[in-house]
Amino acid sequence: MTPEATLARFREYMVGPSRFMTLVSCFELGIIDALRETPGLTAAELGEVAGAKPDAVEQLLLLLVKEGFVAQDETSGGYRLDGLAGVSEKLIDQALADLYMIKAVTLRQLFYLTETVRAGEVVALKELYGYDGDLYGALGELPELREPWARLMDTVTAHVDPWFFENIDIPAGSNVLDLAGNTGLGAVDTLKLKGSPGLRVTTFDLPDKEAECLANFRAQGVEDVCSFIGGDVFDGVPEGFDVVLIKHFLPMFDKSDVLRILDGVSKSLQIGAQVHVLVPVFPEDIKDPDNYTVDFYSSFFVGCTMGKGGPQKLSTWQSWLEESGLKVTKAVMDDWENLPPHALTAEAVLSATKVA
Amino acid sequence: MTPEATLARFREYMVGPSRFMTLVSCFELGIIDALRETPGLTAAELGEVAGAKPDAVEQLLLLLVKEGFVAQDETSGGYRLDGLAGVSEKLIDQALADLYMIKAVTLRQLFYLTETVRAGEVVALKELYGYDGDLYGALGELPELREPWARLMDTVTAHVDPWFFENIDIPAGSNVLDLAGNTGLGAVDTLKLKGSPGLRVTTFDLPDKEAECLANFRAQGVEDVCSFIGGDVFDGVPEGFDVVLIKHFLPMFDKSDVLRILDGVSKSLQIGAQVHVLVPVFPEDIKDPDNYTVDFYSSFFVGCTMGKGGPQKLSTWQSWLEESGLKVTKAVMDDWENLPPHALTAEAVLSATKVA
Repeated sequence: MTPEATLARFREYMVGPSRFMTLVSCFELGIIDALRETPGLTAAELGEVAGAKPDAVEQLLLLLVKEGFVAQDETSGGYRLDGLAGVSEKLIDQALADLYMIKAVTLRQLFYLTETVRAGEVVALKELYGYDGDLYGALGELPELREPWARLMDTVTAHVDPWFFENIDIPAGSNVLDLAGNTGLGAVDTLKLKGSPGLRVTTFDLPDKEAECLANFRAQGVEDVCSFIGGDVFDGVPEGFDVVLIKHFLPMFDKSDVLRILDGVSKSLQIGAQVHVLVPVFPEDIKDPDNYTVDFYSSFFVGCTMGKGGPQKLSTWQSWLEESGLKVTKAVMDDWENLPPHALTAEAVLSATKVA
Repeated sequence: MTPEATLARFREYMVGPSRFMTLVSCFELGIIDALRETPGLTAAELGEVAGAKPDAVEQLLLLLVKEGFVAQDETSGGYRLDGLAGVSEKLIDQALADLYMIKAVTLRQLFYLTETVRAGEVVALKELYGYDGDLYGALGELPELREPWARLMDTVTAHVDPWFFENIDIPAGSNVLDLAGNTGLGAVDTLKLKGSPGLRVTTFDLPDKEAECLANFRAQGVEDVCSFIGGDVFDGVPEGFDVVLIKHFLPMFDKSDVLRILDGVSKSLQIGAQVHVLVPVFPEDIKDPDNYTVDFYSSFFVGCTMGKGGPQKLSTWQSWLEESGLKVTKAVMDDWENLPPHALTAEAVLSATKVA
């Protein structure tokens, strides 16, 4: 890469925040909905819809016209949706869930990325909200983070959970442990989506999750086959399970902690027991220009959620499992064809067997 | 543009803030300087330099490796500068001045873009700093904004001011008014860079600039040929000048106010007097993919500096001057060849004559 090309490429970085918020703001101001409803509206008319001066509407729409998301008629000056016209309501909703989560959970937080990386904790949560702790704790206390987060997670879980359970094998009658299973949703999904006969599922998480988890089991009518064990994964993993699920958990930690978790799981298991892991992955070829995982998720985990952790290559996850005495029998990437065109990452399932 | 292409393009928007801060943070952490000094450093070694865990350094450097800014040796795991290796120190400094200004003045501020557009004032300054007013006022009170701003302005002014004066004609003996001339730098530059014999230059700005402006004139030894008039441009422009300079001022306002300013200037002038305007411009073809002015400057003026204003096309600036009875005799864009490869905009000079 020449020095000139390098600096020219910097422009894409410099306009990153402004492009992002210009697009988000056109949605927030109601401009896109108004144009979907009434093509041909002028800046003056859109200003009334948005509660803003026509001059500002014109300034923001320039970028969307440049991109071909919106078109402007040269004679009338009126605007209409262009590329955005054909996008289904469902996909727009999914994309907006992403955009609004990124705005709420990352935009201002990234300002503190350097301090966060040095501290190993999310400095932004303290600076912006006076909150001491990680994003997952903050979600419980701060609706301005929880609501956009939940909106996105709903769209993600609706796809990923069924896909995860399609791709793993849980034999009938298994005794299943859902590691870091939070308040029991994963346990309920295991029964609902897997449905092998005679399953029993135990949610393992910090003791303060117990009451809500048991209430969820009762509300779902699964209290006879689901239970809760309180504890800290770093102090030891409950023994006696045939299958352990580890979903959305490992990328929250650096390598040394991932290995501690996997070692704990491995030690808790009899030979032949199964582990199924769901993780986000970087492409094996980091330079793949069509893959955006690196562009978003490194600074997301390190800067905005935990102050550490992050995705890894599939081959790295595999090697870490094997270091812990878990032989990987299957490693499947989600198919990009199943994901919306704006998806920034694909998840993977790794299945492994405890070996001697 | 197909719906699929539109949503796929959204990914560039979604990763905008994270890409931006990942790059900035690698500079802030000292990683780039360390690699320039000592190629081949590992994540562990860079972690010591940065005061951060090697895991976090690895996560952040993935993006720079993806881009080809940095390279990683597959065997040793060590890093070295790749595209960044050949960039001169001067250009790196200029690019960093841009990056740090964008971080300080826009990144968190853009979170409030929608509220700012509706209010017509920079809501972020109130939210982040408790400051009521626009960016230019805030710069005077907040060193965390002023310092990165001044660092960038130094690099911009060093190029733009000489270029502006090269491109305008100020006849010997002219009586020059520098409109919105702040604390006199433009007046001093007029004498220094133009140097026609017998020039007199008057800075016109709000009365509270007077003391500092006169002090600057004395410090530069130009108090005999420079003076200050206090006033508000919207209340009227001082009469009796042969040449009026309007630099870095018009893009702070919406069309109606730009026309009020230009009308005021026009009314103050005798037929034949000259006006020279320096403004940032959008390309005539908004869709030009190599031009980044739209991507950055719309939300910059509207969202981060004034809550209004913005660049315009050269043809628009020209038409606004002519609406005010100022016949444009020359309109020159700065040459992109004279600007660094990361430049987001080029300025233009418009020269006009007061006509009957």
